[in-house]
Amino acid sequence: MIKKYIIAIDLGGTNLKIAVLNLNLNILRKEIIATRTFRTKVSLIESIVDSVNAIIARYHLKKRDVLGIGLGVPGPVDHKSGVVHFFPNIPGWKEVKLRDILQRKVGLPVTLDNDAKAMALAEYTLGRAKNASNALCITLGTGVGGGIIIGKKIYRGKNNAAGEIGHLPINENGPRCNCGGLACLEAYIGNKRILKQARKIFQRKISLEELSLLAKQKHRKAVRIWKEIGRHLGVALSAVINLMNPDVIVIGGGVANSGKVLFSAVRETIKERAMSLQARQVKVLKAKLGSDAGLFGAAIMLKQERALR
Amino acid sequence: MIKKYIIAIDLGGTNLKIAVLNLNLNILRKEIIATRTFRTKVSLIESIVDSVNAIIARYHLKKRDVLGIGLGVPGPVDHKSGVVHFFPNIPGWKEVKLRDILQRKVGLPVTLDNDAKAMALAEYTLGRAKNASNALCITLGTGVGGGIIIGKKIYRGKNNAAGEIGHLPINENGPRCNCGGLACLEAYIGNKRILKQARKIFQRKISLEELSLLAKQKHRKAVRIWKEIGRHLGVALSAVINLMNPDVIVIGGGVANSGKVLFSAVRETIKERAMSLQARQVKVLKAKLGSDAGLFGAAIMLKQERALR
Repeated sequence: MIKKYIIAIDLGGTNLKIAVLNLNLNILRKEIIATRTFRTKVSLIESIVDSVNAIIARYHLKKRDVLGIGLGVPGPVDHKSGVVHFFPNIPGWKEVKLRDILQRKVGLPVTLDNDAKAMALAEYTLGRAKNASNALCITLGTGVGGGIIIGKKIYRGKNNAAGEIGHLPINENGPRCNCGGLACLEAYIGNKRILKQARKIFQRKISLEELSLLAKQKHRKAVRIWKEIGRHLGVALSAVINLMNPDVIVIGGGVANSGKVLFSAVRETIKERAMSLQARQVKVLKAKLGSDAGLFGAAIMLKQERALR
Repeated sequence: MIKKYIIAIDLGGTNLKIAVLNLNLNILRKEIIATRTFRTKVSLIESIVDSVNAIIARYHLKKRDVLGIGLGVPGPVDHKSGVVHFFPNIPGWKEVKLRDILQRKVGLPVTLDNDAKAMALAEYTLGRAKNASNALCITLGTGVGGGIIIGKKIYRGKNNAAGEIGHLPINENGPRCNCGGLACLEAYIGNKRILKQARKIFQRKISLEELSLLAKQKHRKAVRIWKEIGRHLGVALSAVINLMNPDVIVIGGGVANSGKVLFSAVRETIKERAMSLQARQVKVLKAKLGSDAGLFGAAIMLKQERALR
């Protein structure tokens, strides 16, 4: 039977995005649900199930027309067994067989992977890393995630845990990171850290959106903050460039919208610090797919996985 | 015609090793020639050619029995075109078509690659990274080089320049590196830096061999130096572990002979700093093939290359 639809879900620390796509990867419908209200594991799983059932009902889909559900989640997972190891920013999850639970409750095939890997796959298939052989895609948000493409495929490493650029130490000593490490990139440029720095410098509460807007208006303090973020990021990317000699680095996530200041600082730092052969060759680009990258990636994952069966 | 022999050359900053191997990769003959005396590019090339001709003559080989020459060199090369980009520790080399020059002068097929990649290939084929899917091999010497194995093959990146773990910055600020970068691992644990540190601490000139011996005898100052080196290396390896989630990390080169102190400090630092999932899974091992790794790797490269034709 020929399937017509894919359901894609991008589960985040603050909200759950769900979409219906056709097999050509066009988004037909999209909804966003706040996850912050679902504090327990059980209620979050129920909300995923409810959102699937609701979108199926609302758009009068038939389950037999749906190829399956692709799900990107904000933490390390065993992609083969469908087990979530844990979520750094959602408490109460430890070795949860999420794929099996969802398949049982929804009655559709489910494919599960880390959200940053989904985003990388999307940028590789549809976005800025298209045609690259070797690429790193990085998402800047509450966490700093990454996905690596090598030889035109997602590179997973031994435990599907490769790509954690957010946890590259950029100093031997420095702030303690959520992961238990020290001086990780995320401890310098994760959203929380940026907002804390901004509050200190502006002497008031300030949002990321405002901070981006002010930088675009060339506000001195805002420019200074984004430049500093770009330098931290540039040091970590120099490490990746020297180690992996990639074709392309794609930067996405909310913080990537801060405008040219951030990207200029990143590129300058790479030029100053990375080895010249590798630095000359690498393109550093802003992600194309924006906040839908996770949904596209989840749908592509599902499509690839089902094609293998 | 069935070939019987491979000539392997490991060109270093201080000496040139040349060996004859059979096709089962047993070393039949080996010689070492000081390269320090060959100061110019022309004289160094001549010395390579002379050493090949000499070893052929001395062991009564017939050129028609030789499959070719595998050559590992201490710097970035274009492996496909056989061009040496430059040597960080041998002056006067820039975009030299070394493969073509040698093939013309010697009349045998030549395969050329970076020495750290050759070492990684050797440890993967015959040594400690055997059966690994994803591995990093690192050589500690005047320079700190690396080779990455992904999916059972040498990972080259866009310009065959991947694997430069010696040029991973481990701090945002720090000593200037030979590569032009700042605070690269090599600037902390390259041999020259170690000897300089040791001279300062011991208040006299001291060799790496003595420094290793003293550490094995639990001499307090020597132990302190190796521990510090291990910590620097551990920080860089934590970055690689979080980014690449490898099965195995193999550490070779002279400095790896300093005994348990170094390896303990490396492993402790990884345990403290890398993400637990990745850190639990990775093995950190001492290279098996010692100073012959480069020769084995050069021979394997040549064998693989000739098999493709």
